[in-house]
Amino acid sequence: MICSSAGNHAQGVALAAGVYKIKAVVVMASNATPSKVQATRDYGAEVVLHGNIWDEANEKAKQLMQERGLTYIHPFDDLQLIAGQGTLGLEVYEDFPQIDVAVVPIGGGGLISGVSMALKASNPKIKIIGVESSDGPAMKRSVEAGHVVTLDKIDTIIDGLRVKRVGEHTFSVVQRFVDDIVTLPDKDIFEAMLWIMSRCKLVVEGAAAAPVAALLHGLIKASAGSRVVAVLSGGNVNLDQLKGLKWN
Amino acid sequence: MICSSAGNHAQGVALAAGVYKIKAVVVMASNATPSKVQATRDYGAEVVLHGNIWDEANEKAKQLMQERGLTYIHPFDDLQLIAGQGTLGLEVYEDFPQIDVAVVPIGGGGLISGVSMALKASNPKIKIIGVESSDGPAMKRSVEAGHVVTLDKIDTIIDGLRVKRVGEHTFSVVQRFVDDIVTLPDKDIFEAMLWIMSRCKLVVEGAAAAPVAALLHGLIKASAGSRVVAVLSGGNVNLDQLKGLKWN
Repeated sequence: MICSSAGNHAQGVALAAGVYKIKAVVVMASNATPSKVQATRDYGAEVVLHGNIWDEANEKAKQLMQERGLTYIHPFDDLQLIAGQGTLGLEVYEDFPQIDVAVVPIGGGGLISGVSMALKASNPKIKIIGVESSDGPAMKRSVEAGHVVTLDKIDTIIDGLRVKRVGEHTFSVVQRFVDDIVTLPDKDIFEAMLWIMSRCKLVVEGAAAAPVAALLHGLIKASAGSRVVAVLSGGNVNLDQLKGLKWN
Repeated sequence: MICSSAGNHAQGVALAAGVYKIKAVVVMASNATPSKVQATRDYGAEVVLHGNIWDEANEKAKQLMQERGLTYIHPFDDLQLIAGQGTLGLEVYEDFPQIDVAVVPIGGGGLISGVSMALKASNPKIKIIGVESSDGPAMKRSVEAGHVVTLDKIDTIIDGLRVKRVGEHTFSVVQRFVDDIVTLPDKDIFEAMLWIMSRCKLVVEGAAAAPVAALLHGLIKASAGSRVVAVLSGGNVNLDQLKGLKWN
């Protein structure tokens, strides 16, 4: 099988392929986070690096699919994948049925599609808020336009949020089940990563820090006492830059 | 009340004093981790910075105790404190009674004293291994000498491991209930911090990374299939140096 991915879908496909002893090819952008590339290879997949953004890697994946006769698994605009990601919403509801608001990052929109449908099906009163980088708000622009739009340019460097064009399925789900989309710049999201490290002792990647960043910046409208869940969607960051640091 | 501390006991005392509405004075070394100093102040304690190492801060604390008529709480050589830290061992055993080996960092020896007594009382077959920095192995030297020794010099910069002279009580417990003490340099311990960030997605401080570092370096003798617990004793690190980093 073959997929394109910013990096976390890559690892999921590589791991699943290994479990089922299927050959997997993963196409990632040349500037993908090195730790994600390495982890994908360690799970046993062949990694092809192409282009500077997921959209370009995806074109390459479709080409290789044709050439090699592989089965293609889209990283976000796939109904079975969305259903799988919905299990996160079901688990949240099982653990914390008092939830009033869920804040979820949006890249291509797969995660928030699954989570929003699962939570709204469990309790329609739960508010779902999406978060994008203002340096590349592909879903927000699409919702505002009323149809899927392709961004002319994209400045966010956060790989999990860096998509020029969201999916048709995900757009349709978000339009229907997501109550609001808020945005803030990469800079504020990176600061929230440090806040999460300091207060929660957790390492999360930029996309995962975006919901917390939105909360810290007061972008989420919720009444006092609201029970809010932030989805921390991944923890694969470039730690090479921390080598040799003294921590005390 | 008053205490001296490298930083985590400081926060515990400050928090407890706040709960019971007691005034707390905490003496820390001038080079204490800034985040620990700030957190201790945020919990409501008066922080006095003195000396370059816990041992010097502790002399100051004893002096202030006399001058101001305060109650002194030792950061490791206190039987009630050790009993409190033993609850960590009880919790480990409750959650994971199959445990074969526990690996615990040693600074002044309070944590490992409580944990070793609790685990040995639960199952005497459990092996307890202590870990110190080879840049300041105050407990290992004492056990080898058969009595508490004061190190002439200490090079470790890891605050939770940086003690020139361990306690009399803790020495006596470690001598009796700890099966082995292994050491490795700060450098290897800092590398293990990054490994823990990468694989466990957790932020831990140097002292907490020491047991994992010892495991990664093959210093813990245990037969294949052994069930090993590493105690991650804290997560207060200097994150200021990460400000402004780009993570993708």
